[in-house]
Amino acid sequence: MNNFVFCNPTRLVFGKGTIASIDKYIPSDSVVMMTYGGGSIKKNGVYDQVKRALGSRRVVEFGGIEPNPHYETLMRAVAEAKSAGVTYFLAVGGGSVIDGTKFITCAVGYDGEDPWDFVLNGSLTKNSRPLPLATVLTLPATGSEMNNGAVITRAERGEKLAFKHPDAYPKFSILDPEVCYSLPERQVANGVADTFVHIIEQYLTYPVGAMVQDRFSEGVLSTLVEIGPKVVKNHNDYDLVANYMFAATMGLNGIVAMGVPEDWATHMIGHELTALCGLDHGVTLSIVLPSLMSVMRKDKEAKLLQYAERVWGINSGDTDTRINEAIKATRSFFESLGIKTHLSDYGIGDDIIAEITSRMQQRGWKLGERGNIDFNVVKEILINAK
Amino acid sequence: MNNFVFCNPTRLVFGKGTIASIDKYIPSDSVVMMTYGGGSIKKNGVYDQVKRALGSRRVVEFGGIEPNPHYETLMRAVAEAKSAGVTYFLAVGGGSVIDGTKFITCAVGYDGEDPWDFVLNGSLTKNSRPLPLATVLTLPATGSEMNNGAVITRAERGEKLAFKHPDAYPKFSILDPEVCYSLPERQVANGVADTFVHIIEQYLTYPVGAMVQDRFSEGVLSTLVEIGPKVVKNHNDYDLVANYMFAATMGLNGIVAMGVPEDWATHMIGHELTALCGLDHGVTLSIVLPSLMSVMRKDKEAKLLQYAERVWGINSGDTDTRINEAIKATRSFFESLGIKTHLSDYGIGDDIIAEITSRMQQRGWKLGERGNIDFNVVKEILINAK
Repeated sequence: MNNFVFCNPTRLVFGKGTIASIDKYIPSDSVVMMTYGGGSIKKNGVYDQVKRALGSRRVVEFGGIEPNPHYETLMRAVAEAKSAGVTYFLAVGGGSVIDGTKFITCAVGYDGEDPWDFVLNGSLTKNSRPLPLATVLTLPATGSEMNNGAVITRAERGEKLAFKHPDAYPKFSILDPEVCYSLPERQVANGVADTFVHIIEQYLTYPVGAMVQDRFSEGVLSTLVEIGPKVVKNHNDYDLVANYMFAATMGLNGIVAMGVPEDWATHMIGHELTALCGLDHGVTLSIVLPSLMSVMRKDKEAKLLQYAERVWGINSGDTDTRINEAIKATRSFFESLGIKTHLSDYGIGDDIIAEITSRMQQRGWKLGERGNIDFNVVKEILINAK
Repeated sequence: MNNFVFCNPTRLVFGKGTIASIDKYIPSDSVVMMTYGGGSIKKNGVYDQVKRALGSRRVVEFGGIEPNPHYETLMRAVAEAKSAGVTYFLAVGGGSVIDGTKFITCAVGYDGEDPWDFVLNGSLTKNSRPLPLATVLTLPATGSEMNNGAVITRAERGEKLAFKHPDAYPKFSILDPEVCYSLPERQVANGVADTFVHIIEQYLTYPVGAMVQDRFSEGVLSTLVEIGPKVVKNHNDYDLVANYMFAATMGLNGIVAMGVPEDWATHMIGHELTALCGLDHGVTLSIVLPSLMSVMRKDKEAKLLQYAERVWGINSGDTDTRINEAIKATRSFFESLGIKTHLSDYGIGDDIIAEITSRMQQRGWKLGERGNIDFNVVKEILINAK
């Protein structure tokens, strides 16, 4: 097991009817900026519940945060928050709204010229003292409700980049599974796929003898395999959505990452597909992962065999056969959610592959748990995904 | 899944050579009370490492905290800490030292007559503002290094009681697996048994459809089954002790407890055996659990069958056969650690059973996840454990 430091101070408030408890956790004299996305919360009753819980607090609303939240949009919120003297941020939405609001709190508390600088250069986050943030999660997927990271898109430049801040953990996050009842199927499918790949990024690397962490990861993966296709179709079944929501939060709150190597190449390549072609995040992961597993099969051999056996019950045949079956099962799992898993399904061809390869070459990125996925390997993975 | 609130702010610092990082986390102007037990830390090098890390900070030492830490001893530390103006507590030891020091920090910050009052009456902890506490764990077992509870013994009255305080989480805990190399076999065996039963108390109740939490619990149990007897014999094998140490911390930090019922009857009955007969805590649990499983088999039927299948691979035969096999496997597991599992092995007979039954009747306790283990059922469990 590798050495590690783990600390996650976010308070999880989980279950039916928990939105009302916002009142207990946000100081009553706060000036609250309440952020949200396209307005679905006004149709499903979440908006009303949140406003009721906020009671007489002064509330500044900032709606319209788009999927893959844009720097340009968020900077408008930063200006509004500053001029209104906001003291507490409440993000009501999915990963995009929460990520975007994390950026806003860090940007409001940033002592520097342009907050985009700390996205480009993580060491500059030390110049930011983010204001307190809480969340009401409406779309389980990214895990942002219980971690300190965010992914922001700068649309004019076609860039989608991640940053972390040590003090950007939400103070608390409300997870009421009933908010999932009104989600579109496609968003649930993407959320399940995203959660699955989050675990894979922290699990499918090389063995370091972290027995409990491996079992934790396999536990989340097995649960997603069991409930994934069901919850896409029946997302008004409380037990199903509760397990989906819980799995999504456990997928990226640091628990399964303690003491193990991490990959994240699938995410980094996927971000490029979203930035250039506008594909849903969950879709990009479902395209890249099976191909990456195949191309990186030698480096990941031991964990691929463990994954094959413990998650899929595949334990006969030679090494290549078992790995091929595990990849096939993974692809079938994404397809069972209703997500197509080849670039050609989305009309993406060689020009995009060339563009992504070229960007990777320019940036000189070496991805993966061993830092050996360079632009040539990325190209191979994308060609394999055609 | 049940509604829940989860928050665990303790920073885990895990791995080889991490004791030195105390210097990073304790403010340099602190007056530190360093607590420990019988002095084994002076033989295995831990004492020297801690003192080196504390550097020029003013340090008040308080050694001699005994197993099942005594109120009487701890109150002497409270007086010393107050007179020395201690601002930070550092517990260097196992569960007894950490629990004892948790009591000390709460007692120093208690605005009331006698700190024993908040042990007897949990609502009085609101009158305590505990001072900051950190730990260097030397014996993995109780999980106290990452939770807010403690168990204290009042020797003169033969009482062993638990309390919790919302602000008693250690600020950070250092877990360097190498400190286990010098542990006596018996302590490792007890620690493995204690960890196993911690998970069982949070898992072996009734199903609430908490799929991920069940998998997490089963993951820790399976790991303990795999490494338990090995780590007792080879506790200078880094990978083995690292997994044992990690499992012990995960066993009682709230993670596997999210959204599920809890039992704790085995612990409550075990505490009486320690208070009256001086048996090691891990030993008492190994005696009580198999018997409790048998007596409570109807209430716990669904989870006993799941436990039988997922932890022990027992999936054939009728219900009673499978449950009997799971109980037998559990007993054999404890015996494989070198722990005898019957009261008669320790010369404990009907007089002690009568005394414990009488105490339970006087207190009117109703134990277990359904609150239906009264003094009559406790008596049945103890008779079954003879």
